[in-house]
Amino acid sequence: MISTREIKNVKALATRKFRDETGLFVVEGEKMVAEALQSDFEVVRVWRRDEIGEEAMSRISSLSTPPPVLAVLRQKPLQQPAPGTGLYLALDAIRDPGNLGTILRIADWFGIRTVVASPDTVELYNPKVIQSTMGAIFRVSVHYTDLVPFARNVRALGGQVYGTFLDGENLYARPLETGTDAPVVIVTGNESNGISPALAAEVTGRLFIPPYPGGETTSESLNAAVATAVAVAEFRRRIWESR
Amino acid sequence: MISTREIKNVKALATRKFRDETGLFVVEGEKMVAEALQSDFEVVRVWRRDEIGEEAMSRISSLSTPPPVLAVLRQKPLQQPAPGTGLYLALDAIRDPGNLGTILRIADWFGIRTVVASPDTVELYNPKVIQSTMGAIFRVSVHYTDLVPFARNVRALGGQVYGTFLDGENLYARPLETGTDAPVVIVTGNESNGISPALAAEVTGRLFIPPYPGGETTSESLNAAVATAVAVAEFRRRIWESR
Repeated sequence: MISTREIKNVKALATRKFRDETGLFVVEGEKMVAEALQSDFEVVRVWRRDEIGEEAMSRISSLSTPPPVLAVLRQKPLQQPAPGTGLYLALDAIRDPGNLGTILRIADWFGIRTVVASPDTVELYNPKVIQSTMGAIFRVSVHYTDLVPFARNVRALGGQVYGTFLDGENLYARPLETGTDAPVVIVTGNESNGISPALAAEVTGRLFIPPYPGGETTSESLNAAVATAVAVAEFRRRIWESR
Repeated sequence: MISTREIKNVKALATRKFRDETGLFVVEGEKMVAEALQSDFEVVRVWRRDEIGEEAMSRISSLSTPPPVLAVLRQKPLQQPAPGTGLYLALDAIRDPGNLGTILRIADWFGIRTVVASPDTVELYNPKVIQSTMGAIFRVSVHYTDLVPFARNVRALGGQVYGTFLDGENLYARPLETGTDAPVVIVTGNESNGISPALAAEVTGRLFIPPYPGGETTSESLNAAVATAVAVAEFRRRIWESR
């Protein structure tokens, strides 16, 4: 059974305001809930369609087809990221929930455990972000922080800050630090405006994903998540190649 | 000026039925319309906000913010793709309009001029597809056709059909044909179900994008567009490397 008040409260978690007030968020679907239960997130409550009925589930679900199971989880406390060695992603004002989810899947796939996002990046606990991570939310840590001081910190530690730019150097034709000795950050810019000027000034390696064949008119840019994936894959290929 | 009937007709192009009946479709925004005018698509009519007014534009637009300009274009006649040398993408039941648009941007960026899509792939002229191509629609040809005979045809010409699979071979550790002598097709599978069994049976090279570092739990898969981009980038890197 689920009470009217409980239905109201779960539904209210679709709003940023109520998520912020309660520190809770929702995950939906069997796979997502199973992964949540195995993760280090606290699962506050699980609702099953078999128990509460189809109609109640459709009222608390944000999906077009109500799932068999939905869980309410507690958000993790915000922490300041402390860069060590390895690869990091930094997201500069990623606005689209689906893009953020896709980028977290990319990080997860390529073994990047920490993602740093500017405060104006879309909220992690937005239901569309959560669902589009396909579970990566449970394995990748996301920290919201000002990226300029973060990048300066990385540089002070002898690390590198890479970003993709239309006037950058061919990604495939230049050496890349891969994070074995010091932190390496790959910055993903905003979908429309790219990397902000203040952060671009902290970039130590301006990369370019070559559009082939050269010289022809092509799309002005790749989707933010796609450019990130192509860059990360190349960093990981270099690590693999050097072994 | 724009008449009530004209408003009704442009609005109706938001539906598949009316697009099919009329063979027309809509593009919106200054950049898209400018590219349309330079493309080999026939531009039937251009509507400017300055001429028809804000309110009329908001009625004919499918965007949340009505653009300064909107154009009605004629769809291209369906053609059967005839594979020659070079790289092709084959899309097996891509359902999400944004994914299709993103994949066309990838094709455009990496110089792939022909994309073949299964008949159950989302319709090319869907407004969400068109807008998410960011203009790639005007430079990449998309053909809807049964992919199994297409793949057989490619094989009969001595070409290769590649796809990504969780049990495939490391993309970075195996030779790749890059389309210099015969057609090379890279298949992108459906967002949920991957490549259909009938088409998978025609695949000559099963590829795997290695998730680093090995052995840890990661996302079950990359987004369809992301996996396509990583694979295409590697094919293009090989071409570049071999020059």
